Amino acid sequence: MTAKIINGKEISEKILNEIKIKVENLDIKPTLAVISVGNNSASEIYVRNKENRAKEVGFNSIVKKLPEETSKDELLSTIEKLNQNPDINGILLQLPLPKHLNEKDFLDKISPIKDVDGFNTYNAGKLFKGETPYAIPCTPKGILKIFEEEKIELEGKTITVIGRSNIVGKPLSALLTMKNATVILAHSKTKNLKELSKISDIVIAAVGKSGFLKEDMIKEGAIVIDVGINRDNDGKITGDVDFDTIVKKASFITPVPKGVGPLTIAMLISNTYELYKIQKGLE
Amino acid sequence: MTAKIINGKEISEKILNEIKIKVENLDIKPTLAVISVGNNSASEIYVRNKENRAKEVGFNSIVKKLPEETSKDELLSTIEKLNQNPDINGILLQLPLPKHLNEKDFLDKISPIKDVDGFNTYNAGKLFKGETPYAIPCTPKGILKIFEEEKIELEGKTITVIGRSNIVGKPLSALLTMKNATVILAHSKTKNLKELSKISDIVIAAVGKSGFLKEDMIKEGAIVIDVGINRDNDGKITGDVDFDTIVKKASFITPVPKGVGPLTIAMLISNTYELYKIQKGLE
Repeated sequence: MTAKIINGKEISEKILNEIKIKVENLDIKPTLAVISVGNNSASEIYVRNKENRAKEVGFNSIVKKLPEETSKDELLSTIEKLNQNPDINGILLQLPLPKHLNEKDFLDKISPIKDVDGFNTYNAGKLFKGETPYAIPCTPKGILKIFEEEKIELEGKTITVIGRSNIVGKPLSALLTMKNATVILAHSKTKNLKELSKISDIVIAAVGKSGFLKEDMIKEGAIVIDVGINRDNDGKITGDVDFDTIVKKASFITPVPKGVGPLTIAMLISNTYELYKIQKGLE
Repeated sequence: MTAKIINGKEISEKILNEIKIKVENLDIKPTLAVISVGNNSASEIYVRNKENRAKEVGFNSIVKKLPEETSKDELLSTIEKLNQNPDINGILLQLPLPKHLNEKDFLDKISPIKDVDGFNTYNAGKLFKGETPYAIPCTPKGILKIFEEEKIELEGKTITVIGRSNIVGKPLSALLTMKNATVILAHSKTKNLKELSKISDIVIAAVGKSGFLKEDMIKEGAIVIDVGINRDNDGKITGDVDFDTIVKKASFITPVPKGVGPLTIAMLISNTYELYKIQKGLE
């Protein structure tokens, strides 16, 4: 078997185009504010990317660039001003923060109704309880979108999610459970990973280790989603999946780059648009 | 192999006694308020039971008994008064509510710092994110206590949790993941339950079907936790586990009654005491 290589770039362009068309008809455009603290070259690329995508669909984009030495109070005050400003629909705090700032002190300060990343406790709790949060974290939401676009039925499927982060693994597990899949949440302390992944219909790798998921860890025809974005010594971006061997055994696979990554940004744009609609009473 | 039958009653008495001794030294006693709406005979037994346990450890216990026809506004106002009253440390809304009242409209109105059941969105979100909620739902917390008392190591264990409720299955999964276990969250739509439960070191049944978990669904020496409380036609209480056959194959088993049930109430008392300490700045 040779897997279908899922074109995340294409799916994301389609979603962004749909939003762009809807935004053209709006008198007041949605506005996304990104807060970036300090100098982190990877973050700078991500922030610029988000800004560009927001502008491409016709949003207003604001980047609040704060210096490395920003104090806790200064960052809190920046967030609060954006919360209060009715022209701002979505607020994103770019992570990681400089070491002297603890992200936990800030994520919950973003108003839940402007929390485009869906990271704050209220939105996380709603998702956990199977209720409707204002926003769902972008990467898990993007992965669900891939399943939807590829018409991959989730109900009754056994899915191993490798990695238990608050950004990917945990919210993704909650979403897949809501879709009636049976989720195995594996992580660095899992002892029998191969046994579990091999009986799974779908394996999702979000571990941050290049080539971590090997061909002998999946069953023939499995669906493999690669959430990893790892940079090798030459600066080349690789995923968590040993693509060249797994592509010959899986039925579907997402590549890196152009797999899950573009969906994450598309979902950020989608979340901003959804929050805009809620705030304007258009839902 | 014959399983050790875990005596939940005994563990719970031990915990309640420890709290009782601590409460004797307090000038102001912790106060638990239980709100009970309408006439539900099972609920009445539960409420009386909670009240009795609270009194036994020296707490003040208040039961707000509201009539079946209580309106949404009346219930909200009852909750708000208890939130504002500094003499009340824990508030519990007994479920189920009468049909015209939706529990989702009320659970989040209990102040997170008085939410002894740990059901509100803030506390659920904290738990989900692996942070520290004010209170953890009582049944999952009681099950962790059983593992602790029986010195059952969770790290690296494969655990199938059957049932994905917000009260048991989901918070329990989050807690077990935090303890470095690998959790398989199974439910009514799971197709290969037997395959999954049979490779699990621990199986926890929270499905509400008498005798649901059969001997051929577990491996030799597995640890089996029975969360079920089912009433058969004669009014006899049974669990979700086919006890008589599984007891011969498992290494540990909780019976019904006198297994998980008493721990649930002990954890309610423990949560009230913890909230009291937080409110009094004794933590």
